[in-house]
Parts: sequence; C-alpha cells; structure tokens
Amino acid sequence: MAQEAVTPLSEDVSKWYNEIIYRADMAAPSPVRGCVIIKPYGYEVWEAIRNGLDRRFKETGHQNAYFPLFIPESYLKREAEHVEGFAPELAVVTIGGGKVLEEPLVVRPTSETVIGEAFSQWIQSYRDLPLLINQWANVVRWELRTRPFLRTSEFLWQEGHTAHATHDEAEFETMQMLDIYADFAINEAAIPVIKGQKSENEKFAGALRTYTIEGMMRDGKALQSGTSHNLGQNFAKAFNINYLSKENVTEFCWTTSWGMSTRMVGAIVLAHGDDKGLRLPPKVAPIQVVLLPIYKTEAEREAVEPIVKQIAAELKAAGVRIHIDLRDETPGYKFNDWEMRGVPVRLEVGPKDVANGSAVLARRDIPGKEGKRFVPQAGIVEAVRDLLDAVQANLLADATAFRDSRIHDVTSYDQMKQVVEAGGWARGWWAGEDARGSADESKIKEETGATLRCIPLDQPGGTGKCFYTGKDATRVALFAKAY
Amino acid sequence: MAQEAVTPLSEDVSKWYNEIIYRADMAAPSPVRGCVIIKPYGYEVWEAIRNGLDRRFKETGHQNAYFPLFIPESYLKREAEHVEGFAPELAVVTIGGGKVLEEPLVVRPTSETVIGEAFSQWIQSYRDLPLLINQWANVVRWELRTRPFLRTSEFLWQEGHTAHATHDEAEFETMQMLDIYADFAINEAAIPVIKGQKSENEKFAGALRTYTIEGMMRDGKALQSGTSHNLGQNFAKAFNINYLSKENVTEFCWTTSWGMSTRMVGAIVLAHGDDKGLRLPPKVAPIQVVLLPIYKTEAEREAVEPIVKQIAAELKAAGVRIHIDLRDETPGYKFNDWEMRGVPVRLEVGPKDVANGSAVLARRDIPGKEGKRFVPQAGIVEAVRDLLDAVQANLLADATAFRDSRIHDVTSYDQMKQVVEAGGWARGWWAGEDARGSADESKIKEETGATLRCIPLDQPGGTGKCFYTGKDATRVALFAKAY
Repeated sequence: MAQEAVTPLSEDVSKWYNEIIYRADMAAPSPVRGCVIIKPYGYEVWEAIRNGLDRRFKETGHQNAYFPLFIPESYLKREAEHVEGFAPELAVVTIGGGKVLEEPLVVRPTSETVIGEAFSQWIQSYRDLPLLINQWANVVRWELRTRPFLRTSEFLWQEGHTAHATHDEAEFETMQMLDIYADFAINEAAIPVIKGQKSENEKFAGALRTYTIEGMMRDGKALQSGTSHNLGQNFAKAFNINYLSKENVTEFCWTTSWGMSTRMVGAIVLAHGDDKGLRLPPKVAPIQVVLLPIYKTEAEREAVEPIVKQIAAELKAAGVRIHIDLRDETPGYKFNDWEMRGVPVRLEVGPKDVANGSAVLARRDIPGKEGKRFVPQAGIVEAVRDLLDAVQANLLADATAFRDSRIHDVTSYDQMKQVVEAGGWARGWWAGEDARGSADESKIKEETGATLRCIPLDQPGGTGKCFYTGKDATRVALFAKAY
Repeated sequence: MAQEAVTPLSEDVSKWYNEIIYRADMAAPSPVRGCVIIKPYGYEVWEAIRNGLDRRFKETGHQNAYFPLFIPESYLKREAEHVEGFAPELAVVTIGGGKVLEEPLVVRPTSETVIGEAFSQWIQSYRDLPLLINQWANVVRWELRTRPFLRTSEFLWQEGHTAHATHDEAEFETMQMLDIYADFAINEAAIPVIKGQKSENEKFAGALRTYTIEGMMRDGKALQSGTSHNLGQNFAKAFNINYLSKENVTEFCWTTSWGMSTRMVGAIVLAHGDDKGLRLPPKVAPIQVVLLPIYKTEAEREAVEPIVKQIAAELKAAGVRIHIDLRDETPGYKFNDWEMRGVPVRLEVGPKDVANGSAVLARRDIPGKEGKRFVPQAGIVEAVRDLLDAVQANLLADATAFRDSRIHDVTSYDQMKQVVEAGGWARGWWAGEDARGSADESKIKEETGATLRCIPLDQPGGTGKCFYTGKDATRVALFAKAY
C-alpha cells in the first residue's frame, strides 16, 4: 500500500498543516460548520497539555470547578467592553424542551460573567480571598474562517478565574499564571515562547492588562499560545464582587482570568514540523517510541517479534508510551508512516539484532544515518530515556535557533515591512501606543497585515526612537503576522 | 460561630440531600434554570470518578476523542426510536454569529448520532475493527424537575462508543463495560450495585439491550448509576456504518454505547450519608484526612501546630489527600464541620500528644469514642493508610448490609406494593414483559410509583410463578421506587 506524500512544509506551510492534521489522524472533519472532531492522536496531545497544566495549577493552590455552559444573554451585557468584544461571535439557544425561551441563553464564549456572578455570592469577607478557581470546559465562538485546532467554532480550554483583595495580588497572580504557561510551553511543548504584554488594541475585552505568550511557527508567523488577564475591578464592579475588609469596609475585589486551549495542539504541530510531517516533543507525544520488527521470512519474524514484545513490555513498565507496529507492511512504509506522525523514537529489531543482543534506535529529529545507532538490549530502558531527553532538548534548541534567526531589530517602518513580509518578527522601539488603543497600530495592521504581538517583558532598557513615529520610546515591541 | 444543623437524614432524606449538597459546598445554585455550579468539593469527587474510570477504559484498549457539542437537527431524526426518546428534552441553537441558522443545531443530549456518522467515515474494512472510543463531555437534556447531580439540564459524563464486526463481540464489550462500572462503583465508590438488564420499557432509545448498575440509596430508592447498551445494528443501519469483511462482503457493524455521569456524585452522597452529613469513601474523598491542632493557649498552639504540619507533610508525601484546619474556631465547631463534609479520618494533635509523641485518629464511619484511638506519631503514615482502608471496607459492608436488609422476595402484587411502599426493593418472579414493552409494567408504575429496575444478571435459576400475572416465569426482576 503506497501513500501519497504530504506537501512539503518548506513549500507551503499552510497546505502542509491542513494535510498533516488529517493525515496524521489528529482530527477529522465534522458535519458541523467550523468544528472538527479531535481524534485520539490529537486528543492525547491535549491530555498531555491538560495534565501538565492541571498539575501546575493545583501546586499553586487552584481548585477545579464547573460552571454552566449556558449564560443568560443579559449577563453578557453587564460589562460594556466585554459584550462588544463577544457579541458577533455568539451561538444562541432560543428553544428549550420544545418551547421558546423567555430569555435566550448564550453558549459560553468565555465565563467571566457567569463566574463573576457566582463569585459575588461566594465572597463575603477578606477571609474568602484569594479565591482561586479553574475550569476545564468547551466554549463556542462563531468563527467564519476556521482551521483545525487553530481556530474552530467550538474548542476545549481551561479558564482560570481568581479574585483578590488588592491590585498587586491580582497582578502577582496574573504574572504567576503567565509564567506557568511559559514554563509548560518551553519545557514540555518545546516552544520557546516570548512573554509580553498585549497592547490596548489587542487586549482582552474588559481587561485592565493582558499578558501573552507568543510562539513562532515554522512559517515565521506568531501564534498567541496562552493569555493571562488582570481584569482590574471591571468585572468586580459589573457583577458586584465585593468583600468586607479587616477594617470592616466594603471593597471591590480585583479579579484575573487566564486561558490556554486546544490551539496549543496546533502550535505544537506548527512549531516543530518538517517536510516529512510532525515532530512531536516526547513529553507531549501520544507515542514516544514505536517498535518495529524487521524481517523478510516467516522464520525471521518468529525470531524477531518476541524480542520486540519483550522490549516493549520493559519500556511500558518503565512508563514509556509505546506502540508496537505488527502491520503486514514493508519497513519502508512503516518508517514513512511513523515519521509523518512525528513519533520521537523508532526502535527496530532485525534478525542480526537477535544474534547480537542489540536493537536500533532512530531519532525523528535527526534524519538518516546520523540519527541511528545500535544499542545493546540490556539497559535499553535507560538508553531510550536518554534519547527521549535528547530529542526533547534538541527540538527546543532547534525551535529557539529558528526563532532567533527570524527576529530582526528594525529602526524604520520600511525595514519593519521588509522583515514581516519575509516571514520574520520585527522588534523595534515603539511609541505609537496610547491608553485607549492605537491608530498607528491599526494602520500598520492594515498596510502590512502584521500586528503588535506584544511588548516583551524582557526589555533592553534605556530609550530609542520609535521606528514608526520617530518619537522617543522607552519600550521595544514585537510585530509579526499571526495565526 | 454556630452552624445550623442539617435536617437529619433519618427524618427526611430528600430534605437532607438538598441541604447537605450546598452546606458541604459540593455545588452552588446557578442563574441558569436546571443547572448547578459544581464547586471544588463536588468536582474533586467527579475527578476521582473520572480518573478511576479513565484508567480502566485505557487498560481495556479504549481511546479518548472529542466530538462537536452541536448536532445538526436532521441527524437525530435518522434513528426513529432515538429521536422519539430525546426530542422533548432538547436545547436548540437557532442563531449563530448574529444570523438565523439554516438548519438549527441541537446541543447534544448524547452523541450516538454524530459519532455514528463519523464511524461511517472512519471504518472501511474489518481491519478497522473493533473501534473503541470514549468521550468526556457535557450534555444537555432539558429537565423540568431538577436536583443537584441527580438530574440537571446540563451534566458531565463520559460516553463510550464502539463498533464491532459481530453481535457477540459487541455483547462482550457491552458486558465488559458494565463490569467496569460495577467494579468502580463497588471498589471505589463503595456502593454495592446490582448488575442487571433493563426491560424493554426502560431501555435506551434505539438500543437492542440496555444493562444497568442499580445502587440503593439511604431512603431505599434505587439510583441507576451507569448503563451499557448493545445497540445492535440499529445505529449502524441509520448511519451506514459498514465494513468490508475478510471475505470481501460489505456488512453492517454492531455498535455499543455506555455512560456514567456526575449523577454518580449524587449516588455517593445518598448511598453513604447519615444524620451528621456526608460519609465519603476514602478512595473518592477530596480530603481523606483533616488535621486539627487542639489547644487552648497560645503557648499550646505554638507547641502543637508544628507537629501537625510535620505529620501533614509526611502524609502528603505519601500521597494521602490532606487538609490542615488552622481556622480560629473551637474544636467542636471544626469536628462538626468536617463530619458534615464526610472526611473519612480526622487527625488531632493536642498538648498531651506533644509530650507523648502520639496523635488521635478518629474515623467518620464509627461515631464517638469507639471510633477514636491514640497512635504513636512514629509510623503514623501506615496507621492512617490502614485506617483509610478500614473505613473504605466498612462503608461498603455497611451499604451492603443496608441493601440486603431492604431487598425482599415477593410472591404477590400486594406483597410487592407493601415492600416498595416501605422503601424497599421487591424481588419476584416476573413474566409480565414482552418484546415491545410491557403494559403490566406501566400499570405497576402508575399504581405504585415503582419501576422495574432490572432483571438481575445473578438469577436464582429454575422457574416460579410471576408475582403479578401468575404466569410461569424463568427470571426474577427487581422493582423499586427510583431517583
């Protein structure tokens, strides 16, 4: 059975992505406009994301809860900017149990409103603060142009919602969660994201400040991979979330929200892929090691398979996620198939290995002979573990080198245009912003298609001339085309 | 701070339940009709259920996936019995992105239809079988009378969906999943459920056969705690799920579905509670051990608290779920509070314990002095583990004794009526059923409020006279009032 080759990533990233998602069985088309089915191979990546984040949330004192899918339409209207931001994207339930509803119910696009209302009931005194809640849920935002994982009408995510006594505590929480997202992205998804603050134009509808982690994809586009919002007292005032202080004074709370979604699955695909297909970081890969028996004759198969199964059992017992491929296909077919699916390590046992007590380990991130070596069967668990660590580290190093090669300092608008046109990120001194959103930024977006991705937290210090306005600037900003 | 006492369970189970769910902070009212907010203390019980089931599903070769929340209305109509069963309970989205939709979208009440359609695309040949998929998701069924966890318009659940080549393989799967539910219910939730088959009247809309696990609650009512359906070829024919056999013949698949929901949280509450509140089995308890420092003076507090924290750290490192209660309340208040919340084990350290190197362990399931004992601080982890095992075993033994005391064999309709009226389950020979649903059963329901809960898998053998019709019967059935 021959397989059509995937469009090489180096030729057309967008086409490659659309093909590889389905070819690698991460998702399947669904009959519902704008929605995909997340298949097991994609869902298991999401499970790895979920487990990695959930552990971090719990370690920092957060608890999971679950709030209703439906939100009364009137709730959304209580925070003016919020409703303006989400109104065009809503799915609305108007019929329930065969009857037209008195008040339509919105399918949650995000849950600040319904959780804000709950917090106003739950919080009475300073003793109830901080309140640190997270929810794993589906949300719906009616999107016109959709792509699997990156932008779908329904997606899965977690949304954290917290309430605090002071601005500074809320800000600490906002930054803590940003750090958790960055830690996960870098150390498990192997994506060297850049932490920064969103501009007024790009911040969350209703937030005081939005922080983001931005990852670079293989076409040089940016992908916002997680956001953390300091909501100030905006939602507290809209939903009357207040508390009695130690001094017996009623005060509004300061709230935050933060989210990461199944979009991160798309980010992992787009940050690491190559012409042959996916390259999954071992820490999030559904299958870390695929084991292949190599044989030509039935006698060879009988000699080889038991050893493959024995090694598989050892690896499984050691907690390695493995798969044995016993399909009746040629080794070449299987190699291509598992390379396309991005399995980090391939383990082969052939007739010679039976005699030698050896096996072959091939790493996905280094192609050809260079990435292959013979190892003794004795101690193979350690060898595999070391190799998985090496692949994980190399994918991060590779993505970091790629990112750094594509970020360019710019001192003029012309330079900036050249950089983003060539698929890079432009970093330049920036004074085009004002407190209520920036017309300069809108113009740049219109003319170049690039947006202000973030004001990086890591700043050079000092001052410079804004590349766009020529004004004195105290901060550099990153501009790029984005997903 | 004094607390109002909960209505004793022995006085009014229904009132007790409604009070305890909110008092113990398992759920909170929501602004959306028929929906509750699942608070952390309730959600963590659900997480224990989810983890316990998910592990079992994966061990038996199932994989998780995620299908769209919305289902085109036309899909539901393809299986005639199915749409008839669910039509009155649907929530319908008619507006998306500000526009009236051409075809309304139903919020999934269950996903046989959309998954059936997907399976018809995914399955080509016998090599693709069996297909073993599970989904963790929210579903919506518009309910008029709702109760937290037991019956809400939106609830969380898992729904397994599988496709097989033959009837027998599908039946094996259906029974395997029933066994998994029973194993979880008995060995983790400590509910001695009875496995059985649903009657034609009570089976799932569109199924060939439905199997159930039925648990007895503290008022003697039955609660259907999980169901497993052999769907025969009904959905395969409606959605054209077929495969090319080894013999090159196109055949319809045989499919199954099976589900357990947040209802199980309510079952755990109602199966174990007592007059003082919840009694949570250690394996599903969010907090397994609550640690209390006992002191009167500040000096005593300073002596006691470090030891409490030390023991807490040891327990936590050993994987025990603990909470230290350092609130500024009396021990009596705290005892009542944690008893109400059903924490299996309370650990106290007082001034005398500091001198003696001891601590007090009190078990929730045995009240008063009998359930308390001094233990040395050295080796306390083992002592706590043993005690948690003992509580787990005792709750199951207690629920089993309660169940057995309330199941009565009946030989006449009068007897049966007396049994169910007194809050028991009536077990009797039954020949009232026919293949298309039973008028006898409907009449019994109308006259007594009791339903045929199941034909237990565990049958006495032989034959007897049907308690209702007097006809010869080969099987006994269980009748009870139910949630």
